[in-house]
This record gives sequence, structure tokens and C-alpha cells, in this order.
Amino acid sequence: MKTFAFIVTLLVSSAAAAQVLPSWNDGAAKQGIVEFVKAVTAKGGKEFVRPADRIAVFDNDGTLWSEQPLYFQFVFMLDQVKASGGPMPDPHDQKALLAAMGKATSGMTVAEYDRKIRDWLAKERHPKFKRPYTDLVYKPMQELLAYLRANGFKTFIVSGGSVEFMRPWAEKAYGIPPEQVIGSQQEVKLEMKDGKPVLTRGPNFAFVDDGPGKPVGIYRSIGKRPIAAFGNSDGDLQMLQVTAAGEGRSLVLIVHHDDAEREFAYDRDSHVGKLDKAWDEAKAKYWIVVSMKSDWKKVFSFEK
Amino acid sequence: MKTFAFIVTLLVSSAAAAQVLPSWNDGAAKQGIVEFVKAVTAKGGKEFVRPADRIAVFDNDGTLWSEQPLYFQFVFMLDQVKASGGPMPDPHDQKALLAAMGKATSGMTVAEYDRKIRDWLAKERHPKFKRPYTDLVYKPMQELLAYLRANGFKTFIVSGGSVEFMRPWAEKAYGIPPEQVIGSQQEVKLEMKDGKPVLTRGPNFAFVDDGPGKPVGIYRSIGKRPIAAFGNSDGDLQMLQVTAAGEGRSLVLIVHHDDAEREFAYDRDSHVGKLDKAWDEAKAKYWIVVSMKSDWKKVFSFEK
Repeated sequence: MKTFAFIVTLLVSSAAAAQVLPSWNDGAAKQGIVEFVKAVTAKGGKEFVRPADRIAVFDNDGTLWSEQPLYFQFVFMLDQVKASGGPMPDPHDQKALLAAMGKATSGMTVAEYDRKIRDWLAKERHPKFKRPYTDLVYKPMQELLAYLRANGFKTFIVSGGSVEFMRPWAEKAYGIPPEQVIGSQQEVKLEMKDGKPVLTRGPNFAFVDDGPGKPVGIYRSIGKRPIAAFGNSDGDLQMLQVTAAGEGRSLVLIVHHDDAEREFAYDRDSHVGKLDKAWDEAKAKYWIVVSMKSDWKKVFSFEK
Repeated sequence: MKTFAFIVTLLVSSAAAAQVLPSWNDGAAKQGIVEFVKAVTAKGGKEFVRPADRIAVFDNDGTLWSEQPLYFQFVFMLDQVKASGGPMPDPHDQKALLAAMGKATSGMTVAEYDRKIRDWLAKERHPKFKRPYTDLVYKPMQELLAYLRANGFKTFIVSGGSVEFMRPWAEKAYGIPPEQVIGSQQEVKLEMKDGKPVLTRGPNFAFVDDGPGKPVGIYRSIGKRPIAAFGNSDGDLQMLQVTAAGEGRSLVLIVHHDDAEREFAYDRDSHVGKLDKAWDEAKAKYWIVVSMKSDWKKVFSFEK
């Protein structure tokens, strides 16, 4: 039995080596990821981390799927405000948009709201790609998520977006179940309707999981410091800093949108997904900066 | 190989049957649990639930460990208020206690607070049992948690207590990792200290995970309706109702403290862990009510 197990192990690991992150070009970024994973999973190694502490956190918009020309959730939210007949806020004034959105969906049950999101995602198409928004997930990041989980990591989304907008599709797209999706939270309260307890939405946000809110969201929902964090914008900076400040080895990575042809190119001057301070810090601290253009063989699964 | 696998399956399942919930006496409670688990795990069965949706939520105080003569966290909190020199609140006035406690620990980093909790739990002893508080976990409930997990369930704590007070020991005691502990939350905010990002505690509670707060906590942190819920007091009522209101089969169970000799006996008139409305509803709805006295062979592991 031992020999048999040994042969199986050999076969599995050589097959695995060939298949690691196939949509990533060989280069510093891929190498940095693979070396980190080897270091923290090597039994008896100095940098070994027990599986329970292999926590990896991923921003969503711009890190796992696209976010241009406007965060997809904002497009959805503007449609809700429009449908409610309320005055239209400036889509780049986040505070005004959240307030208008809170008002537009206040009083709905969470089930009603969930239905609106699912219907919208099924029907709407992205202006550039003419495809459902949920097609715009990055294939290399899907592979990275799967690779980390195959190495004993527990993967979480930590997004400025609302949990409601991600949970319906994150399991299929990313293999991340609803209970591992951390995000912004609108108020909800328990009420009785037709003799049944239901949760209804209030008009205000109870928690905004962005910038300095991300480490708070991680503390509240996970209660452990991540050892790996993935982002693409200044809204992720504090999450990346907290991860990097851990005692053991950590992996901190930023996705840089520099591929106008296959996706979009933007950074320091963008309204959406601005990458400025976090980029400077990445350079100073030698965090991994992924060039979508040169590090990724494919951006989307649907590419030829 | 098929025959071999079949024999192994046979051996494992006959061994498992003999060992299911060994600290539970045979009776309606144990039978109700086992029947429910069989129904939702039987492939092809009408009541089958896919593993991802096998969510089980457990209250902590009085359901998984003792809570008399006063919630153990309240004893800890009173000690913190005492140490801070503040005026002592009435231990049964929850609002006054939370306010005093918030003030006493405000400004601490979350790491400092965690250290205080661990030190206190290591040092203090329960007045009746003269043992560490963490010894006072119920053996039958530990078995129940393990039994559910062995059947593909994901187990969560949903407690009125603070996440900080449970996370340090819940994994060892219950097999529940920090990220599956849902509870009340004091405000925390991100600050820089000595050039490092740290979370510090504010004076107020941001969320109280009790009564109608429990379904809110479940919605925020899990995002799915549980199919099994376990409680012992009126503070659990809404969590039990929401679980029972699901479309498929559900298991709703209340632990009744009727064993003054081995633990404590209390229900409708108790200051702590009052069981009144939830008991009436349990009777009306045929939820399982566990008698600690007659359903449990052993209450604690340390019993002779």
C-alpha cells in the first residue's frame, strides 16, 4: 500500500506542477505566489502555517472581476433609483449614491432584494463586452483561488460592495460560499409579515467595508490576520498593510490594470478603482504588482 | 476495489451507529436529532439538503456551556470595570453593564483585550464547580457538534456574547473556528501605532447579537437560512423561529436546565437565561426540548 500511495503522490504532484496557474505567464508574479505557497505549506519548514491560519482575502471589484466604466453594483443601484422615481445622484459621488440607493430599496424584504439582484444580473449586459457582468471574472484569479484552496487556504472576499450583490454568484464564479463573503452592509431588521419572521431593509448603511473599514470587517467576520491579501486600488491599502504587518511570512499582491485592449487601462487618475497610494507602497515594500498585460495569458474565460 | 470500499463503508457505518451521541440517553430528543440528520443527508431522498446548505447555528451561553450564576462574560466584564476603578453597575442590568464595560476597555488594542480574556480564563474558577470556566462545556453538545460536522454540516456559534470572549477557546472546545463565531461586536477602528496598523476598541457596542439581533447576525455573516438551530432561552427565540420558517425540513431544539444536582435548574423566572416564551412556542410547535436531567447521561466531561 505504501508503494502504491507513493506512486499516486508522484503522479498527482507532477500533474499538479504542470497545471499550476496555467493562465499566468512565467515571471516574477507567478513565481512569487508559488514560492510563498510552498514556504507556508512545507511541513517542518521555518515558515510553515497550520491550515486553520491560512486565511486569504480578496477584494472583488477590479481584483476578481472588472469594475469599469463604473462599479457594476453602482450601475445596478442607479437602475434601482431610476425605477423608484427618485432624483438621480452623481454616479461618482459615492455618498450621494449610497443615500439614494438606501432610500430606493428601504422596506424591501431581503428576499425581494435578492430577487432584484438576480434578475438584473441575468438580464443586463456590459457596455464594452456585451456579455453578462458575471462573465467578467478574471480567469487567472479563479485559478489562483483554486490553487490556494488546494493548498489548504480558506478564501474570503472582502469588498466595498454589498454582500447581497456578490453572494448570489460568488460560489459559482469563485468557489467562495456566501458565509465567506464580507462586504458593506445595509441596515436590516426583523419584522413579522403574515405571521412569518422576515428581514427588511432600512435606509442606511450599517457598515462600509472599504479602506480602513476592510481590516474592521476582517476582524469582525474572521477574527484572524490574513497571511495573503489581494487588491487593486487605494481602497484595499489598509487591508494589504494589515496583512503585511503580520509576524510570519505574508503574500501581498496588487492587480494593475494596464491592458486597454483586453480589459481597461487605468490607475492614478481613475474615478473608479484609483491606484495611487497603494501603488507607491507596493513599490516601497516590494509587494507583487501584477501586470494584466504581461502576467496574464488570458484575462477572461471567453477570450479566444 | 469496489468490494473493498463496500466493506470499509459497512465497517465505518456500523461503528458510527454504535457511537452516535454516546452521552445522550435513548429517547425522543436523540431520536429526533438522528432522524433529522438521516433525512437531510439521504441522497435522492425528498428532504435531501446539499452540504453547502447544511448550516447549523448554536447559541453559546446555556446551550453549549453553563451560564449560572451569571453569564461568564459578565463576570469577566465586572472584573474589568473593577480594575478600571469605575463605579460598579448592577450585574443584572445588561445595558448599564455594557456601557460600563465599553468604557473600561475603550482605547485598548484588540490584541491587548484578547490577552486580558485569555489570562482571565486561565486564572479564574467557577464558584460552584471550582474549575476553569472553559471546563463547563456540555459533553453531549460537543458530541452533537461533531456528529453534525461528520454529516456535512457547517457549525456556527450565534451568541449574545462578544466574539472576543469566545474565539480564543471555541475551536478547542467545540471545533468551531473564529470565523464561524458570530456574536456581539464592540466598535473597533483602525489606527497607526508605532508605524503599524492596529485595531483599537471604542466605547460603544456596534451590534448586539441577541433576540431579534440573532437573525440579523446570521444574515450578515452567513447569508443563508440555517436548517438547524439550538438554543436555551428567550434570547434565542427569533433565531429558532427563522430556522423553523424555512421551506424544507428543519431541526429546532431547546436545552432545558432542569438538573440542579449536576448543573443548575432554572427557566421562567431566571434573571439569566430566562426560558419562557421560547418554551411555550417549543411546546406549541413540537420543537425538541432536551431535559438535561433525563436526556443526558453526562453533562460535563469531568464527571465521574
